[in-house]
Amino acid sequence: MRPVTALSASPKKAAARAPSRAGRSLQKGQQTRAVILEAALGLASHMGLEGLSIGALADVTGMSKSGVFAHFGSREELQIAVVTEYHARFEEEVFFTAIREPRGLPRLRAMFERWVRRVSVEVDSGCIYISGAVEFDDRPGPVRDALVGMVKAWHAALHKAIELSVQEQHLRADADVDQIVFELHGLILSLHHDARFMRSPGALARAGVGFERVIHFYASPLGLEIDQARKSPKNGATRR
Amino acid sequence: MRPVTALSASPKKAAARAPSRAGRSLQKGQQTRAVILEAALGLASHMGLEGLSIGALADVTGMSKSGVFAHFGSREELQIAVVTEYHARFEEEVFFTAIREPRGLPRLRAMFERWVRRVSVEVDSGCIYISGAVEFDDRPGPVRDALVGMVKAWHAALHKAIELSVQEQHLRADADVDQIVFELHGLILSLHHDARFMRSPGALARAGVGFERVIHFYASPLGLEIDQARKSPKNGATRR
Repeated sequence: MRPVTALSASPKKAAARAPSRAGRSLQKGQQTRAVILEAALGLASHMGLEGLSIGALADVTGMSKSGVFAHFGSREELQIAVVTEYHARFEEEVFFTAIREPRGLPRLRAMFERWVRRVSVEVDSGCIYISGAVEFDDRPGPVRDALVGMVKAWHAALHKAIELSVQEQHLRADADVDQIVFELHGLILSLHHDARFMRSPGALARAGVGFERVIHFYASPLGLEIDQARKSPKNGATRR
Repeated sequence: MRPVTALSASPKKAAARAPSRAGRSLQKGQQTRAVILEAALGLASHMGLEGLSIGALADVTGMSKSGVFAHFGSREELQIAVVTEYHARFEEEVFFTAIREPRGLPRLRAMFERWVRRVSVEVDSGCIYISGAVEFDDRPGPVRDALVGMVKAWHAALHKAIELSVQEQHLRADADVDQIVFELHGLILSLHHDARFMRSPGALARAGVGFERVIHFYASPLGLEIDQARKSPKNGATRR
């Protein structure tokens, strides 16, 4: 399966190559960039993408403004780099671990469970996708385009996993794939809202119950059987 | 049924009384306050509550900063006034019209449909509840408290309508009321996200399909029958 988006070469990969003098300088530059980006991700999680500024990052990293500026030529470039890095981590945690599960319901379930886990970790820090969607919903431009592109990529990955569940005959042939994506996303948004904004307990369990309802509504007899086997302790899910 | 929150006396009511000189002055003050508040609502819908400032409002209304300041002593007071006014309008449009429907599924359905309609109008302007939840999710203080209070009041009204649907035996006795509130709210959040941020068509219909799925899952045989009668052209819903 194709990754959701191509990841740019990471500083770690560059560091694995034997460095020449020019290489070392490049490597150091990439490390500094990674340090700034890490600080920027932290800031954006708490303050939103609009809370990012070259000045605030200089403060946090103890660098000069011009030092930060040398790596990210503008606030917009910085915001896009944060969105891209956030997406790469989301993919790593949610998508690339879930696609190890067998096609069909096991994989779809793994995607949803890891997504829920990610959001529940973010109850304290905030989700850049969700806050970014509100910050940039009526601000056209490259940052909004980057955010929309990332969300679309994730929705496409969910779409594909649901389609495969239909192909594997775990979900009924008439299952409305877009409708399922819409409803699963709603459960995640409701979880984020209730847990982070309302601080109301029980939201995590409710997202899980909602998922079961959606799946059982669209499941085929085979799908229900597989799901039942998953719950029985004697039958562990087979992994590829 | 109790209103979700008590509304403060409106300028219109004050205007209905015969004015003395002091009364006329008070009346004019209230009218000016209403003009500023109207402008503030417009600004906050587009820019968020954090986009509000005494200066920006002075620009929009053509008043002096000190003129605006005379009516709203601080930015925070202004933000709270906007939240309260927004909530009063939401109640007026969504809640007070829906409670005219008979108790049970007809009323619950009316609440959801008017909520959807409100959100779909706000696709162009933005919803202060949804953007406010993201802006203030980790900023403790009176503005956050006001927002949380309003959302809680609306959730309580939904909760009550679902409970009445159980009492009227339209929903099954074992229906999980908090779970239904959670899922309906998720459909609204997904609608707002897809329509406003993703600009994707079809979100409105998906919210409706999601509602039917939730209701049919929890409906009693009587509830399904009432719902079926509603769809038949011969049987108009009886109104109290």
